[in-house]
Amino acid sequence: MKLSRLGEFGLIERVRRTTAQGRGVNLGIGDDAAWVQTRFGSCLLTADLLIEGVHFDFKWTSLYALGYKTLAVNMSDIAAMGGTPAYLLLSLGIPADFESEDLEEFYRGIRSLALKSGIALVGGDTSVAKSLFISACLVGQVPCRPITRSGAQAGDDIYVTGTLGDSALGLKLLKQKSPKLTQRAAKFLLSRHHFPTARVRTGATLARENLARAMIDISDGLLQDLGHVCKASRVGAIVAEEKLPLSVAYRSLTGHDGTDLALAGGEDYELLFVARRRDRSRIEKLQEFVDVPISRIGTCVRPRDGIAVLNRKGQRVSFRATGHDHFKHL
Amino acid sequence: MKLSRLGEFGLIERVRRTTAQGRGVNLGIGDDAAWVQTRFGSCLLTADLLIEGVHFDFKWTSLYALGYKTLAVNMSDIAAMGGTPAYLLLSLGIPADFESEDLEEFYRGIRSLALKSGIALVGGDTSVAKSLFISACLVGQVPCRPITRSGAQAGDDIYVTGTLGDSALGLKLLKQKSPKLTQRAAKFLLSRHHFPTARVRTGATLARENLARAMIDISDGLLQDLGHVCKASRVGAIVAEEKLPLSVAYRSLTGHDGTDLALAGGEDYELLFVARRRDRSRIEKLQEFVDVPISRIGTCVRPRDGIAVLNRKGQRVSFRATGHDHFKHL
Repeated sequence: MKLSRLGEFGLIERVRRTTAQGRGVNLGIGDDAAWVQTRFGSCLLTADLLIEGVHFDFKWTSLYALGYKTLAVNMSDIAAMGGTPAYLLLSLGIPADFESEDLEEFYRGIRSLALKSGIALVGGDTSVAKSLFISACLVGQVPCRPITRSGAQAGDDIYVTGTLGDSALGLKLLKQKSPKLTQRAAKFLLSRHHFPTARVRTGATLARENLARAMIDISDGLLQDLGHVCKASRVGAIVAEEKLPLSVAYRSLTGHDGTDLALAGGEDYELLFVARRRDRSRIEKLQEFVDVPISRIGTCVRPRDGIAVLNRKGQRVSFRATGHDHFKHL
Repeated sequence: MKLSRLGEFGLIERVRRTTAQGRGVNLGIGDDAAWVQTRFGSCLLTADLLIEGVHFDFKWTSLYALGYKTLAVNMSDIAAMGGTPAYLLLSLGIPADFESEDLEEFYRGIRSLALKSGIALVGGDTSVAKSLFISACLVGQVPCRPITRSGAQAGDDIYVTGTLGDSALGLKLLKQKSPKLTQRAAKFLLSRHHFPTARVRTGATLARENLARAMIDISDGLLQDLGHVCKASRVGAIVAEEKLPLSVAYRSLTGHDGTDLALAGGEDYELLFVARRRDRSRIEKLQEFVDVPISRIGTCVRPRDGIAVLNRKGQRVSFRATGHDHFKHL
């Protein structure tokens, strides 16, 4: 079967099925990061690919931003387990005519975020390649118990951090070469697209305080990532459209898209987590402590109800195909 | 500066220089693997890239062999620190028209070695790409103290495991479409090329017994990798040509190449280590225990003497340009 038919998630599922869980593997393929035992301890492991022409395009991004984002998206996976990112391995495939100064820009982007996040670049590999690609592997320190995707139960509340759709709308304006790009609001959206903020402190606090029963970072779009949590936890979900946290910039520039990009745009790198109803007031307090807005957007329901987004009137909102599959959408 | 001028090692050196050593980093960029602290423990980290058209060519290799070798070369880096490989993260860039069955073959190659080595595939990433590339990251358990490249001293003995040059000669015969390829000896060489054996047990034993003062795996060719040890340890080296361990197959098929490919062919994935003179008898005994031939091939000398290979008559052997640089040799 061609991979373009099997799809990315089909492939991952096949690999997962045929991969034996090894000794010391607390959590293997299928969550934001793996959780493994090392001698006397344990750590979190995550890996991400960024490929020119697939994940980024030099028409829309600088090498500095690319470096920054490479690290941020991996940090986000560790944050989604409640962990603290610590060590980075970076492998680069680089075209032979690349200027070393351009590469310095890339590393400068990595370093600027690594320094303020206490992350050390400890190794990797480099080779010549036809087009630029980046393969990062990030090791994280483990909280008492990492937060997986699978602990949600019907009746639990669904929360997200920050605001949704900013990154996708920023990219859309860029691609359209929109005249709105000169506006201050657009600059905010672009900065959300190029320099996402991994919610490390929020994730770690949720883990330490034992508040989140399931967690994921929103990289493929709210609905697709909520779908991963629902599938792993065997629950359904109802999301209230009017509760979606939208930035002022998003509201002012979204136009006919409405909430589409907030629901399914992707690359938000916010956290989506599920918590017990009785912990509502603790989570409100947490919000002040971590200094990041946290919005309750819905409720987990029985699995057979699937995932629904309801508008103010309680009607189902229809939305376009969600998320991204690197093999299917070609 | 174009990368093709700066070169791979120039690039690595630049990155290393501008990278601060972080908290918990016992050993960062510049050895076979990094050595980092995790909560209550520590682990080894290594990463390798394999790119179609650079590191492999489907004219010479099958997907099964490619999978096997991907894991073996990473295991070899962990072995070279005296560690035990444990967890694998595997990121793949895959052409969209790839058949999923071919990919299964690749994973079958990975699994066949992972299972017998106690290694678990715990994560990674996949994406569509123009040509196939593989980015692996392997986490290893640490011995009491990992063996770096920098502990050799003048007067120490230099050893290698196994035999040298088999892999390079095998590949050369393949590329020449040599009529010798039907011979049994050639089949041995090809198997050494496609299915290298990482010397994990030997490396771990050398570390546990505190026998090796410096160690590296031979991936770029004996002389280049010996050069890395000499540079890191600030010593020179004299290698006796007649002591180079050559397989019967290599001797029978090498022809005019003589010891060239054993000195500089690359992809041997044997261990090169340095030990005190007084430990000679202990190392001889070790050889029986680990069931791998270990050959004493030379001596460390003062740094200003550089690296020399001497023949039986004590004359310097001249050899062709050594090793491989992925940016410079284009």
